[in-house]
Amino acid sequence: MSYLGVGVSPGNVPVYHGSDLKVVDRRVRVAELVLRSVICSLALVAAVLVATDTQVKEIFTIRKKAKFTDMKALVFLVVANGIAAAYSLIHILRCVVSMIRGSVLFNKPLAWVIFSGDQVMAYMTVAAVGSAAQSAAFAKLGEPELQWMKICDMYGKFCNQVGEGIASSVVVGLSMVVVSGLSAFSLFRLYGGNKGGRKTSGGW
Amino acid sequence: MSYLGVGVSPGNVPVYHGSDLKVVDRRVRVAELVLRSVICSLALVAAVLVATDTQVKEIFTIRKKAKFTDMKALVFLVVANGIAAAYSLIHILRCVVSMIRGSVLFNKPLAWVIFSGDQVMAYMTVAAVGSAAQSAAFAKLGEPELQWMKICDMYGKFCNQVGEGIASSVVVGLSMVVVSGLSAFSLFRLYGGNKGGRKTSGGW
Repeated sequence: MSYLGVGVSPGNVPVYHGSDLKVVDRRVRVAELVLRSVICSLALVAAVLVATDTQVKEIFTIRKKAKFTDMKALVFLVVANGIAAAYSLIHILRCVVSMIRGSVLFNKPLAWVIFSGDQVMAYMTVAAVGSAAQSAAFAKLGEPELQWMKICDMYGKFCNQVGEGIASSVVVGLSMVVVSGLSAFSLFRLYGGNKGGRKTSGGW
Repeated sequence: MSYLGVGVSPGNVPVYHGSDLKVVDRRVRVAELVLRSVICSLALVAAVLVATDTQVKEIFTIRKKAKFTDMKALVFLVVANGIAAAYSLIHILRCVVSMIRGSVLFNKPLAWVIFSGDQVMAYMTVAAVGSAAQSAAFAKLGEPELQWMKICDMYGKFCNQVGEGIASSVVVGLSMVVVSGLSAFSLFRLYGGNKGGRKTSGGW
C-alpha cells in the first residue's frame, strides 16, 4: 500500500481518508507534542512543589521539621517527575525537529526505542503516583488499627502542598499513558501490511 | 501487501519469514495464552494469600487481630488481583477458541476492546503493586520521623504472607505489561499498510 493523495499533486488540498498515513502521522505528532509539553511542565511543577515543601512545627520545646525526604514515596515521586520532565524535553525537541523536516517515522529501531522508553516512563509514573497516593492517604486519614497517626493534622500546609504535587502527577501519569499508546501505534503499524489482503475477514 | 506463503499451496511447509502474518500471529497468540495463564493463576494465588491472611496477638489482656482489611492498599491489591484473574480467564477462553478456529485477529473494534481492557488491567495491577509495596515498606520499616511503628515486628507471620502475595502480584503486573504490549501490537499493526511503500525511508 502506498501513500494516497500525498506528494502526487502538491498543489491539492490534502485528502483526508483512512489510509492517508501522512495525515494520520501529522495528527499523532501534534497530539504527542501537546501531551509531552503538558507532561514536561506539570512534572516539573510537581517535582518543585513536593521537593520545596517544608513545615516547621514547635511542640512544647521540640522543633520538628517536615520535609519530603521523611517519606520514601515522596522521594520516588520527585525523582520520577524529574526524570519524566527531562525525558519529555528530549522528545519535544525530537518532535519539533521531525515536524520541521516533515518526515514520517519509519525507522523501526528508533520506534522501538521510543516505545520502550514511553512504556517504562508510563508505568514508572503510575507506580509513583500509586505509592505517593497511598502514603498521602495514610498521612491524611491515619490507620487507627495500626496506631499510625494522622500527621496531616499536625502539618496541614505541608500536606496541602504535597496534595497539589500529587494532583499534578496524576495528570502527568495519565498523559504519559496516552503518549505510550501513541508510540505503540507508531511502532506497531510498521508491522502491518495486511490492509490490502484480508481486510474484511473479521475473525478472532 | 498480501499473505505470502499462506493459503497459496496448502500442502507446503509454512514459510517463516517476516511478512508471514499467520506465523507471527500464532506465536503472539501462544505467548499471550501462556502469559494470561500465568496471570490468572498467580493473581488467584496472590488474592487468596492476602485475603486469607490473619494473625491474632495478645498484648497483656487485649486480643488484637491483624487482617488485610486493616490496610486499604491490601484491599485494593486483593480486588485488583481478583479482577485480573477473572479477566484473564475470559481471555484464555477467547485465545483457545481462536486457536482452535485458526483465525487471525482482523476485527478492529474487538482489537480495540482487548487493547483498552489490557491497558486498564496493566496500569491497575502496577498501581496496586506500587501502593501495596509502599504500605508493606511502612509496615516493615516503620517511619520514625512520623512515629509510625513497624507493625511487622508484632505480626511477623501476617507480614510474611502479605509479602508472598505482593511478590506474586509483581509477576502478575509484569506479565500484564507484556500482554498489553502484545495486544497493542495486535491492534496497531491493523493500521499499517506501508510496508510495500517507503519501507526504507527511515526518517523521523
